[in-house]
Amino acid sequence: MSLLDYFKSSKSSSASIARERLQILVAHERTSRNQPSYLPKLQAELLAVVKKYVNVDENAISVNFEQDEEREVLELNIILPDETTH
Amino acid sequence: MSLLDYFKSSKSSSASIARERLQILVAHERTSRNQPSYLPKLQAELLAVVKKYVNVDENAISVNFEQDEEREVLELNIILPDETTH
Repeated sequence: MSLLDYFKSSKSSSASIARERLQILVAHERTSRNQPSYLPKLQAELLAVVKKYVNVDENAISVNFEQDEEREVLELNIILPDETTH
Repeated sequence: MSLLDYFKSSKSSSASIARERLQILVAHERTSRNQPSYLPKLQAELLAVVKKYVNVDENAISVNFEQDEEREVLELNIILPDETTH
């Protein structure tokens, strides 16, 4: 399955309301768990970069973090403001 | 399907060689295609952030970009250097 297919299949029901959405995923496959995760810090910095390009409301950001033995996956979902109102 | 499941299912055959990998996906669902895409610029800045945390070899980065009418998906795959050698 291609990534594009994944995003199509994962379309949420709320997507029927046309909205600009930005989704950022960071997946880290780790061979060793001896190092502390840097994903939380990375997340904060990635968001700072995104905010340079889009007008992001803090309330419009949802964060999801999953991990198992082999990898950690950080997901940021951002509902973008309607650009036609700008 | 959860994201974690997606990453498990998309495990490449080369993953049998234990390697640290970092994968970054940026998906932008667009309601309008009148604006130019900012994903290419965003990509450069995201990479700059990642490089603050990990030692990234330019040759170890592969970039994939897919788009259809509704969204664009940018994928960065980074093979991380073996941390045990540091």
